[in-house]
Amino acid sequence: MRIALDAMGGDHAPGEIVRGAVLAARRHGADGLHVILVGQEAVLERELQAASDDASELPITVVHAPDVVAMDTHAAHAARRQRQSSVHVGLRLVRDGEADAFLSAGNSGATMATAVLTLRPLPGVDRPAAGAVFPLPSGPTLIVDVGTTADCQPRHLVDFAYLGAAYMEIVHGVQRPRVGLLSNGEEAGKGNRLVQETYPLLAASGLHFVGNVEGRQATAGAADVVVCDGFAGNVVLKVAEGMVTLIFDLIRGAVRSRLHYKLAGLILRPALRRAAQPLDYREHGSAPLLGVRGLVFIAHGRSDATAIASGLRSAHAAAQRGLLYHLTTQLATRPAP
Amino acid sequence: MRIALDAMGGDHAPGEIVRGAVLAARRHGADGLHVILVGQEAVLERELQAASDDASELPITVVHAPDVVAMDTHAAHAARRQRQSSVHVGLRLVRDGEADAFLSAGNSGATMATAVLTLRPLPGVDRPAAGAVFPLPSGPTLIVDVGTTADCQPRHLVDFAYLGAAYMEIVHGVQRPRVGLLSNGEEAGKGNRLVQETYPLLAASGLHFVGNVEGRQATAGAADVVVCDGFAGNVVLKVAEGMVTLIFDLIRGAVRSRLHYKLAGLILRPALRRAAQPLDYREHGSAPLLGVRGLVFIAHGRSDATAIASGLRSAHAAAQRGLLYHLTTQLATRPAP
Repeated sequence: MRIALDAMGGDHAPGEIVRGAVLAARRHGADGLHVILVGQEAVLERELQAASDDASELPITVVHAPDVVAMDTHAAHAARRQRQSSVHVGLRLVRDGEADAFLSAGNSGATMATAVLTLRPLPGVDRPAAGAVFPLPSGPTLIVDVGTTADCQPRHLVDFAYLGAAYMEIVHGVQRPRVGLLSNGEEAGKGNRLVQETYPLLAASGLHFVGNVEGRQATAGAADVVVCDGFAGNVVLKVAEGMVTLIFDLIRGAVRSRLHYKLAGLILRPALRRAAQPLDYREHGSAPLLGVRGLVFIAHGRSDATAIASGLRSAHAAAQRGLLYHLTTQLATRPAP
Repeated sequence: MRIALDAMGGDHAPGEIVRGAVLAARRHGADGLHVILVGQEAVLERELQAASDDASELPITVVHAPDVVAMDTHAAHAARRQRQSSVHVGLRLVRDGEADAFLSAGNSGATMATAVLTLRPLPGVDRPAAGAVFPLPSGPTLIVDVGTTADCQPRHLVDFAYLGAAYMEIVHGVQRPRVGLLSNGEEAGKGNRLVQETYPLLAASGLHFVGNVEGRQATAGAADVVVCDGFAGNVVLKVAEGMVTLIFDLIRGAVRSRLHYKLAGLILRPALRRAAQPLDYREHGSAPLLGVRGLVFIAHGRSDATAIASGLRSAHAAAQRGLLYHLTTQLATRPAP
């Protein structure tokens, strides 16, 4: 499968992005992964030479895109005006069937807006959604939407549920994924107006709906897919990230307070690292953009080579398993409105 | 100050609640704390004897209330029908000037609904709000609302900002508290419709408005008061709680995986406890209900005696410092609509 990679997007672009491509190409080239680096050709050729001695033998090609979307560019501007950016060029490769998926660690708003404009939404989908996978000890949980559509209608959340369930089934092998509705109380009838109106629609959807889930249950694996508007989903994601930082900072401070703690801390360091590992975005890499006619994945802006390689591997697997086809057929099972 | 305590509310009522009252009366009786236990008189007298030898010498009195609000009773039912419950009787003590504050670890929805009905909102306040204090290393942060009003209008969030700022100033001694608006992006203009419409109102409020804060920044102490609707606030609170459980479970699992980790873990246990302590709800105890004509505090349903004692201490301090007066004067500084 050919994965178009935005080589100009991300805090550590293009260096780490290109190194991530090299890593992934070495590891997964034999499985059929081909990386298309999209960006300023001369820069990328140079980075590629710097990153490996055997670049010419790896399944990596470069497609030129002269323009770069800055991290602070307004999404609509990037989508409508910067037609020669690496984001636009990469997404056009997907639209034209020259790539099977697109991955970017750049300006995520710009990538999503450009994807909607270039690829168009899937049939019957009004609003696309970005998902984020929490690798919980009990298994992965997908939160969807985490920021694409801040204000949602009930039918949007229902679409997110279908898309999220198909994603978890195909990409993470979860049979009949449990769909939960993020709320501020478990009982049916709890929630804001949006949740209260969405509940009966999900209950009648034919999906495996397990009812309302609170933030606490969402982080405890009570559902495989947690559906919410993009505002609430972003809050979940960012608070979770913030708590990881906060807790490990508190632990570090406590361990440094006494010499014998410090010594025990040295012994325990690998164990603490292992505990923190499932919480590390670099391990799960990228968030799918669901609901457009093509596979698009968003990696964290801070992604390093490891994160990019992991994102490429996920995108490759999703494309191999026919994710786009399954999303479309899942949507077709929606009851007629 | 006389604090009315709902002795029948909470997972461990009445035993732990009464023991909490005894603890607080012993510790803070000399500072003028007087606890009014509200509930079934015979039961409470018995618990009080069981909890201490010197009950008769402590500043604790019992006020009889025959009825108990169950944890699963609908809030409106408890507020409108159960007029002889410990919640109703305790709040009437506040309304009638016989108590200076009310504290309950029971059904929080019922307490809030009954408080609004019994005490009425403060002048010019449409919707009351519950606050929760995050004891961050950089200082306490108040999240408001955390569940009272799921669907808000911009003017409600502005009221929450005034109330929250007054609370942090009086109770936590924060000078000119920094007010942040919870959003899914830092820049002005980011957010859902509610946030976008609230932003200019807060910018013009005269409060120390620091703009939008994301969930990540909220947990990093970027604002002293984080304003949001009750749905989003509940999500913040519950995800934060869930992440604490998740992370310490992961650490426990990693430490148990090897013998030498286990030994180092034994040495480090006090340090890890100390790290977890600021994250423990028992240490910060209770959430203020802001915007009603009286001081009302909600403790966690799981509260034990320590948590109740801590909640009584906070309520006592808030009453001593004249919180209600300051909330009212702060609201009076709002620009005319």
